[in-house]
Amino acid sequence: MLNEVQSKEPIIHCITNQVAANFQANGLLALGASPIMGDAVEEAEELTLLADALSLNIGTLSQRSLDSMLISGKTANRKGIPVVLDPVGAGATRFRLSAVNQLLQHVEITLLRCNAGELAAIAGADWQAKGVDAGAGDADIEPLAMEVARRYRLAVAVTGETDLVTDGQTVEYIPHGSPKMAEITGMGCLLSAVAAAFLASVEGPPMTIAAEALRYYGIAGENAAAETPGPGNFSARFLDLLASTEQQDIDEASKMGGMLYGRD
Amino acid sequence: MLNEVQSKEPIIHCITNQVAANFQANGLLALGASPIMGDAVEEAEELTLLADALSLNIGTLSQRSLDSMLISGKTANRKGIPVVLDPVGAGATRFRLSAVNQLLQHVEITLLRCNAGELAAIAGADWQAKGVDAGAGDADIEPLAMEVARRYRLAVAVTGETDLVTDGQTVEYIPHGSPKMAEITGMGCLLSAVAAAFLASVEGPPMTIAAEALRYYGIAGENAAAETPGPGNFSARFLDLLASTEQQDIDEASKMGGMLYGRD
Amino acid sequence: MLNEVQSKEPIIHCITNQVAANFQANGLLALGASPIMGDAVEEAEELTLLADALSLNIGTLSQRSLDSMLISGKTANRKGIPVVLDPVGAGATRFRLSAVNQLLQHVEITLLRCNAGELAAIAGADWQAKGVDAGAGDADIEPLAMEVARRYRLAVAVTGETDLVTDGQTVEYIPHGSPKMAEITGMGCLLSAVAAAFLASVEGPPMTIAAEALRYYGIAGENAAAETPGPGNFSARFLDLLASTEQQDIDEASKMGGMLYGRD
Repeated sequence: MLNEVQSKEPIIHCITNQVAANFQANGLLALGASPIMGDAVEEAEELTLLADALSLNIGTLSQRSLDSMLISGKTANRKGIPVVLDPVGAGATRFRLSAVNQLLQHVEITLLRCNAGELAAIAGADWQAKGVDAGAGDADIEPLAMEVARRYRLAVAVTGETDLVTDGQTVEYIPHGSPKMAEITGMGCLLSAVAAAFLASVEGPPMTIAAEALRYYGIAGENAAAETPGPGNFSARFLDLLASTEQQDIDEASKMGGMLYGRD
Repeated sequence: MLNEVQSKEPIIHCITNQVAANFQANGLLALGASPIMGDAVEEAEELTLLADALSLNIGTLSQRSLDSMLISGKTANRKGIPVVLDPVGAGATRFRLSAVNQLLQHVEITLLRCNAGELAAIAGADWQAKGVDAGAGDADIEPLAMEVARRYRLAVAVTGETDLVTDGQTVEYIPHGSPKMAEITGMGCLLSAVAAAFLASVEGPPMTIAAEALRYYGIAGENAAAETPGPGNFSARFLDLLASTEQQDIDEASKMGGMLYGRD
Repeated sequence: MLNEVQSKEPIIHCITNQVAANFQANGLLALGASPIMGDAVEEAEELTLLADALSLNIGTLSQRSLDSMLISGKTANRKGIPVVLDPVGAGATRFRLSAVNQLLQHVEITLLRCNAGELAAIAGADWQAKGVDAGAGDADIEPLAMEVARRYRLAVAVTGETDLVTDGQTVEYIPHGSPKMAEITGMGCLLSAVAAAFLASVEGPPMTIAAEALRYYGIAGENAAAETPGPGNFSARFLDLLASTEQQDIDEASKMGGMLYGRD
């Protein structure tokens, strides 16, 4: 699938937070995609009409950016392009949870890319979120993710120690990645945009495509972690590897992992 | 001219986008300039009064930042300091094109620094913009750039595979740079601010000064590309080289390139 | 004290500028703290209630972010968590000076982390600020810092060639750091957030804790400067060293510096 992304060079409209914006745009460029980063209400519709996918992220949400997300989300639905939602810190404040609920209600989301704490907030389960990070709770992630996937008719990718993707019927685990990825701000934000680029370029079930995006991303992360001494150089090397990782690298590395569960 | 920039240490007021803001400030510091990055309407005039040049960029435009740009632009004109305009994605939305037209109408711009697609949008020529990137069209860039330069009485620098600078009468091509520069977000944004720093520090025709800024920038880019394996490390190394490139490096590298055309 | 920060993993709510936001979040993560970066009025109170310290920074101030800072500041005071204020460019515009005065009046600040020009603006002394940088003036920094510390009942950390910390009664000089730190945007901003993380994790007089944060930061800066050829790689390496510096490194390096003056 990576080849298809690289040859399509999809345009991804990102309405995102000010912390991750630079990293997200550079990561998309490294993959071979073209980012559009404008978030003004005045141009939200026109920008989305130029794009092959829409990536929404509430990391530093404001009422204005939420308005833009709703306009762009509806535009993407009319146009028929994929929409990825990254509900950063969904459980942290009522403002964020309300924003996520509005987006899930008014926009057909293709993929919800979140961590366990955000998933629990969306599902309504109890989960002790630690700031906007993953937090620790005792909910069982898999049934929650499947329930959310069915409720909103979308694919769900929950990233953490082991990543999980589900369409509500089946679940796939992606065992790639590195704990060092959690030490870089915007790692999840960029992943959501990368998944949007895969969804924009490949035909097929969103869950399967999202799983491949997670493999690509996790493998680049593993390799960057192995080659660098700390988070500053990790971050630079990770962008290098997003640019140089090839389909063959993914295929070889994924032979060693990945478990498919059939469910109902 | 680089020596003059380094000894003046000019203050550059940047009203710019949230994606490139960090890279732009770090690039100006690497060159030896001092960035001021505030973009609030409440302080736009006072900040510009502290500066030696103004750098305007519409990459993530909002109505408020446009208001600030108009105030700061007029302030810069009253004060007599150079103004550089970077019309990011000018052809992508009506909001952007209208903003650029307002800025060109109400502010005397010294240098318009853009890519081919943005130039075409400003000139009114047909050009298929691909998001906010350069796009590909069949307009002939040189006559368009000259026409825009004459119409608005400013210098125009169009960057792409080969860079071009014109004052509407003559055209100079700057053959430096690397395709890797297009893989980093904010590369054009930072170039515009670097050109503002050169214009703030050197006496002479804006076109000639802009051409030297482009040579400096392109040579740093070439060298960074030769020394690094991918975009993440390229970006870090590029900032290193903005700090260490000397006049002599520019003079030697530019012996191998640059073509001057007389026109009228 | 570094061990205490690393084992507490404090959550730091940062309301900061768009230039430094990414670097600040990555620096906090490198230290082992958890950043929360939201700055919307709608969620300011709730976000601060999740945090162990609050870090306020006016680098790209707007009226809305000032409103959020006031709400979060009062929330932090009610909750009893430390508040650090970084008055970026306080002397540059009336908007900034007025914002700083409002924050000092309505919020109990634990630590004011500034440069000499900003200190002078707050103290009301004449000081020729150069943009938002330190500037050069003839005020004597030490008595100004002590006066401001007493007037607002807080600790003051003034960074520059030699850093100084005071509680209004005693002054400690921290001789660590590198001139290269001034070539990176957001270096002061991240330091303020790092100081907030120390204050959130360690019991004791704020001045003493701030001094240790400055030692940790300065020593990482010295080492990064010694190991890298320019600002781009310096910046990446500095983040690596924020992650790998240990208490022992601080203790050994600080044996060679630091002068304690008793006053009053």
